[in-house]
Amino acid sequence: MSALNPVPVAIVGASGYAGEDLVRLLLSHPRAELAAITSRQYAGQTLAQVFPKFAHHPKARSLRFSEPTTDALVRQAAVVFLALPHGLAAEFAAPLCQQGARVIDLSADFRLRNPAVYQEFYAQVHPVPELLSRAVYGLPEIYRSALPAANLVACPGCYPTSVLLPVLPLVRAGLINPLSIIANSLSGVSGAGRKLESDYLFVECNESLRPYGVPKHRHLAEMEQELSQAAGRPVVVQFTPHLVPVNRGILTTLYLAPAQHFNDTAAAARLDGSLRECYQSAYGQEPFVRLLAGPALPDTKNVVATNVIEIAWRLDPRTGRLVVMSAIDNLTRGTSGQAVQCFNLMCGFPETSGLM
Amino acid sequence: MSALNPVPVAIVGASGYAGEDLVRLLLSHPRAELAAITSRQYAGQTLAQVFPKFAHHPKARSLRFSEPTTDALVRQAAVVFLALPHGLAAEFAAPLCQQGARVIDLSADFRLRNPAVYQEFYAQVHPVPELLSRAVYGLPEIYRSALPAANLVACPGCYPTSVLLPVLPLVRAGLINPLSIIANSLSGVSGAGRKLESDYLFVECNESLRPYGVPKHRHLAEMEQELSQAAGRPVVVQFTPHLVPVNRGILTTLYLAPAQHFNDTAAAARLDGSLRECYQSAYGQEPFVRLLAGPALPDTKNVVATNVIEIAWRLDPRTGRLVVMSAIDNLTRGTSGQAVQCFNLMCGFPETSGLM
Amino acid sequence: MSALNPVPVAIVGASGYAGEDLVRLLLSHPRAELAAITSRQYAGQTLAQVFPKFAHHPKARSLRFSEPTTDALVRQAAVVFLALPHGLAAEFAAPLCQQGARVIDLSADFRLRNPAVYQEFYAQVHPVPELLSRAVYGLPEIYRSALPAANLVACPGCYPTSVLLPVLPLVRAGLINPLSIIANSLSGVSGAGRKLESDYLFVECNESLRPYGVPKHRHLAEMEQELSQAAGRPVVVQFTPHLVPVNRGILTTLYLAPAQHFNDTAAAARLDGSLRECYQSAYGQEPFVRLLAGPALPDTKNVVATNVIEIAWRLDPRTGRLVVMSAIDNLTRGTSGQAVQCFNLMCGFPETSGLM
Amino acid sequence: MSALNPVPVAIVGASGYAGEDLVRLLLSHPRAELAAITSRQYAGQTLAQVFPKFAHHPKARSLRFSEPTTDALVRQAAVVFLALPHGLAAEFAAPLCQQGARVIDLSADFRLRNPAVYQEFYAQVHPVPELLSRAVYGLPEIYRSALPAANLVACPGCYPTSVLLPVLPLVRAGLINPLSIIANSLSGVSGAGRKLESDYLFVECNESLRPYGVPKHRHLAEMEQELSQAAGRPVVVQFTPHLVPVNRGILTTLYLAPAQHFNDTAAAARLDGSLRECYQSAYGQEPFVRLLAGPALPDTKNVVATNVIEIAWRLDPRTGRLVVMSAIDNLTRGTSGQAVQCFNLMCGFPETSGLM
Repeated sequence: MSALNPVPVAIVGASGYAGEDLVRLLLSHPRAELAAITSRQYAGQTLAQVFPKFAHHPKARSLRFSEPTTDALVRQAAVVFLALPHGLAAEFAAPLCQQGARVIDLSADFRLRNPAVYQEFYAQVHPVPELLSRAVYGLPEIYRSALPAANLVACPGCYPTSVLLPVLPLVRAGLINPLSIIANSLSGVSGAGRKLESDYLFVECNESLRPYGVPKHRHLAEMEQELSQAAGRPVVVQFTPHLVPVNRGILTTLYLAPAQHFNDTAAAARLDGSLRECYQSAYGQEPFVRLLAGPALPDTKNVVATNVIEIAWRLDPRTGRLVVMSAIDNLTRGTSGQAVQCFNLMCGFPETSGLM
Repeated sequence: MSALNPVPVAIVGASGYAGEDLVRLLLSHPRAELAAITSRQYAGQTLAQVFPKFAHHPKARSLRFSEPTTDALVRQAAVVFLALPHGLAAEFAAPLCQQGARVIDLSADFRLRNPAVYQEFYAQVHPVPELLSRAVYGLPEIYRSALPAANLVACPGCYPTSVLLPVLPLVRAGLINPLSIIANSLSGVSGAGRKLESDYLFVECNESLRPYGVPKHRHLAEMEQELSQAAGRPVVVQFTPHLVPVNRGILTTLYLAPAQHFNDTAAAARLDGSLRECYQSAYGQEPFVRLLAGPALPDTKNVVATNVIEIAWRLDPRTGRLVVMSAIDNLTRGTSGQAVQCFNLMCGFPETSGLM
Repeated sequence: MSALNPVPVAIVGASGYAGEDLVRLLLSHPRAELAAITSRQYAGQTLAQVFPKFAHHPKARSLRFSEPTTDALVRQAAVVFLALPHGLAAEFAAPLCQQGARVIDLSADFRLRNPAVYQEFYAQVHPVPELLSRAVYGLPEIYRSALPAANLVACPGCYPTSVLLPVLPLVRAGLINPLSIIANSLSGVSGAGRKLESDYLFVECNESLRPYGVPKHRHLAEMEQELSQAAGRPVVVQFTPHLVPVNRGILTTLYLAPAQHFNDTAAAARLDGSLRECYQSAYGQEPFVRLLAGPALPDTKNVVATNVIEIAWRLDPRTGRLVVMSAIDNLTRGTSGQAVQCFNLMCGFPETSGLM
Repeated sequence: MSALNPVPVAIVGASGYAGEDLVRLLLSHPRAELAAITSRQYAGQTLAQVFPKFAHHPKARSLRFSEPTTDALVRQAAVVFLALPHGLAAEFAAPLCQQGARVIDLSADFRLRNPAVYQEFYAQVHPVPELLSRAVYGLPEIYRSALPAANLVACPGCYPTSVLLPVLPLVRAGLINPLSIIANSLSGVSGAGRKLESDYLFVECNESLRPYGVPKHRHLAEMEQELSQAAGRPVVVQFTPHLVPVNRGILTTLYLAPAQHFNDTAAAARLDGSLRECYQSAYGQEPFVRLLAGPALPDTKNVVATNVIEIAWRLDPRTGRLVVMSAIDNLTRGTSGQAVQCFNLMCGFPETSGLM
């Protein structure tokens, strides 16, 4: 495909918050042409009618939602983004892949390599287990080399993105005990999707702080898969998500045991140097990873609507633990932006196209 | 003192958020008479002028802020609440105690028994170390028996309240390894007080999630003092506070290692039973501790403006850890309400007076 | 009935936000005994199970929601509060009144004296028009004398309360042209009730400001009824409600034409004096009306969870208009608190019982 | 200047919220090169250090804040944006203009043509009254033809933008009585700037709704200047701003008297047609004006971070009034985005450059 012609893309299920954020990014992407958007609920209406916020884009006034059919999608688009509930996504992915479309799936359907783990965490038999081995886990900083040839990309969950990017380099470098990982996450309410449940009404969320899904949230499955692979042995993670009253953002605080004890200032300084070196080597050149220095700590308001992850760490000489903190936008870096980053790599475009 | 005559009380430094919440409670307290309020900034103005929200109380329209002088306070009040910055509080407490007033201090000045620890965490020499041994730590569920005779009460910090109430019974019962305690806390912005710093402007806090004070927050000192005493050996705690956009509330999530491993369902069920028994025995009859059962988890919106703490726990058979969660109002249970609970015990009033 | 025995009361439909706030007030009311609460959805569960926030009240742990039947209600309660949707409320009110219960209705069913107006604004035939003439409009400052003998009270809507209290005295005194009234109101999201509509999801309301129901909101009917009666001629009102991201509160800004022009400072000062005199005479002794003086302007945060209305006014010599502003809590003064104020008057209790 | 070489631009006073939003837009502008940013407070630090949120732009990591000196600014930039307090802005504008820079001023200093009005509303003598006649009022839809040749542009205030765009076409077309204008506006807290005043602390703004600046806000001066000019006679406006808890956004509701009465459905339909025609003719081709059709009403969440204004209107046959509503982002359309739109017109660039 020519670098000058835009790539025709489609979004299936563009009416949720993740799909909507993907529309935002693809409408302005210099190398993508939004050729089709589907939604059973909104079929026939223009993008501008459903999402007035996009109405100043000429494309939003002409492009209409259609019923999702794989035949039409394959004709219209070279790359299809699936923003569907898990289970349903797999049903679309299989025929699309078979007919030659490249698929970027935002659901959980292709994130796990082991169908038994999928069944354990998602309480259903995987509909197309034979596709699992073909999917690339779309965490670009980790799987960059596999993405150009990928035809099926499984975008990571929002919580796993906020956990894996800060932890994987430490596990790979042997700097922490991989069995010690505790992840405490705060999420904005858009993470729950556009669900009509009373838990997500304004009055129920505003002035409310609450944990949920304790202790076995579904996102554990992919966190543990990736960390186990990096560690070379089975890893289980302690993970607690919390709902807090912001629209967007995930703030994750990680409690980790360094592989080496540090009893004095000198040992702590040496370990801190190793950590800096490890992160610098992993992410020093990454356009979307911001390693904070000095007294700065992550703050979700500095990453909202961007594809950036902020990471900072502190050694605690009193407890011997390492505290690592990260901030992302759950919709952009957690879903749609990371999907576009994968898309750029799949198509050979500059990785930051449409994301700066 | 007669049970029918109200006790005259004073609030020194009633212009911050904690002082304001104390005013709210004492204006309606059936056994207390708000006899004096002081504030250098507002001296001469009525309570109603400074806080319009109280103006429908007749007392608020007549009571004026005065300059704080210990002589006048001792004449006017039998019990004096100090809502002052640490350091300054100790300067008032000493002469007040000497002249016979009973003092309930909301600052950190009398929480620590060891002046060296005070100096380490508060970066100043303690002004009246000889008073430290006379102070009672005002956590009523733990120090109830000492409060009736107390003349100087040190109300716990808001974070320590949210950590100690759920953890102390477990440590006392030997159910957890006291060296394993990790506390992750989220706090509403009123916890920072009415400080004119740009960090606390609406635009900087709204749509923002951020950790701060990592890894050595001042409240660690009192947490560790109380936990060490309960454990019978030195305890250090891992504690990370976060600022989140609500006015009031602290949500604390605790990661703990049970003293006994549990490898199977039966062992987990036994341990869960022991935990329930431990909490039931400690708090089953407490009017302000709500032990959640079934699927319920703590939510700050259920405790705002009350003196209640909500507690729930979950064993994680995958990791072998115990997750305990608590919710309080940082101003009421975290400060002013707990102070009134102490006041009730000091005066022999029903413990719930003015708090239901 | 004896002043010392509490009055048994019931709440029908206690699961919405208004019903919940009424539960809060009645649980603590010194002269009321919450004898029954009904809810089809929650029948069988205790109040504490449905609303954990009330669980520290012993009564909340014993009282169970029941199916609503008028026979049982009449046996259990002397006064029945109806917190039901309009239409349904009238179906309960009729048999309850007939069987001798006194009814305080929070819905719109008995606010309008003219069934044709009810039909115009609520798009249904009034089910029991013969009861309309017996109902007292429960705005206590205006209808105080009729409340002690009332057996059926129609509590005003939240918006009408915020408009009528500031405007009625001016109309009665002939100080404004009653045909000039423009009311611009902002409401917190609890005003929409606990409705599962996507418009009220957190993400849709947070960081959103929007008008709705323009130009013919249902609450106009009762505003115009009361203003027409005060003016002695038909009055129509311009009214625009807006949804803004707070839980509770209504801020209403009124644009009015004074009956007399004021062209110079002296005339403005005279008119301002008349306005002050008018408001002072109407509300100077009212426990729940706060007339702001000096530079103070209404702020909903000063009235949240109280029965107070704040009122301030400004003459604009540049335009010749009068701007009057009011703030209430839409749930408390707008619904439940005003209902309790009516209850107090009906039962001969001090008007502020349970409301300070 | 060549269309292919970017225009070097500078921002003076880039540390407030308006300046920060301007930085956001200019960093991504395809035809502008951010050559200098000044701030006394931050001189020496990089843009990335002061605003971590921009740190993923390479330019933000290299560009440093400098002390503002007109000599340096003239050397570095062809166009200088002034994001300074009024009074101070004029002091910079005069020498910059004299030395040949083109100036886009975001303050109030050059918005008023009459220095006496400036003195009345801003309580100081205008420092360079001779420049007033040279300034173009930077409301592009109204003053588009004057902008290409302008060397000094006065960007309108945020409230005036939200009022003038919906009202000016109606006044020009004679569709409303220009003496009838009432504007009720709600503003997000960023409109107050990054001021350290307790009124703007999170806890004071969250869960608060309040009017302020009643009845003579400074922005009236420019509203009335522009409306008087359009009407051909002196116009005074009734304007009430309110502070509401969102970060960004202005929602303005306008109450207007149509020039022609409409007593029946047919007359209302004719008038509605005239209004549609008027707005369509004024804004039908405008890229940043969204005329809402059908049941849609403005919502600030649909315009946040964009340069778009949403406008809708309703005739009220009951009162004979016209209600017009608009929504903008107070920072982008209200300040920085509109400034960039002016910049595009001044430089001959497509008007939407850097704004879509």
